[in-house]
Amino acid sequence: MGEVKHLCLVKFKEGVAVDDVLKGMTQLVSEMDMVKSFEWGQDILNHEMLTQGFTHVFSLTFASADDLTSYMNHERHAAFAGTFMAALEKVVVIDFPVVLAKPPPLLPA
Amino acid sequence: MGEVKHLCLVKFKEGVAVDDVLKGMTQLVSEMDMVKSFEWGQDILNHEMLTQGFTHVFSLTFASADDLTSYMNHERHAAFAGTFMAALEKVVVIDFPVVLAKPPPLLPA
Repeated sequence: MGEVKHLCLVKFKEGVAVDDVLKGMTQLVSEMDMVKSFEWGQDILNHEMLTQGFTHVFSLTFASADDLTSYMNHERHAAFAGTFMAALEKVVVIDFPVVLAKPPPLLPA
Repeated sequence: MGEVKHLCLVKFKEGVAVDDVLKGMTQLVSEMDMVKSFEWGQDILNHEMLTQGFTHVFSLTFASADDLTSYMNHERHAAFAGTFMAALEKVVVIDFPVVLAKPPPLLPA
């Protein structure tokens, strides 16, 4: 099994300082060596019918399922997750082995 | 603005031939040059409280928002999307410019 991703779709509660949450998450994963990479984004289409109200995506990539487990069980993740979850109105979390069905071109276009 | 992702979280209707849907999607994006890369995955944690019943993730990466628009407006996407949406019990779609907060290491670990 290759890379594993930990993906969160969230809708923040009203009044939450989203920038602070983003800073905290970026800081956390930058210091956790088992996190291979981290990207996030904010929806730009705003079709409520399609987004179901979710506004942000957070995607952590791990080299293996063991690294994901190690991250999930780390006390610093647990501490952050408590604060994070309290800031959310709703959330979906999916963890999945990555199937790269169409790889990116080797050279930048 | 750099890469843009088109992300779908889905729960299929009972009885849907998921493998056929996956084959159709892989075939479609492999023939659409504006799709830079395509990956998908199936949840392995199965915590209903976290997954909200969603089981699969589909993630398409585009080099630009223009490429995403070009894909969304393509007649072949429209044809596939009709069949795809009919196979789903529920779906969330998010489109977002990628913020790469922690890039992967340059060399494989």
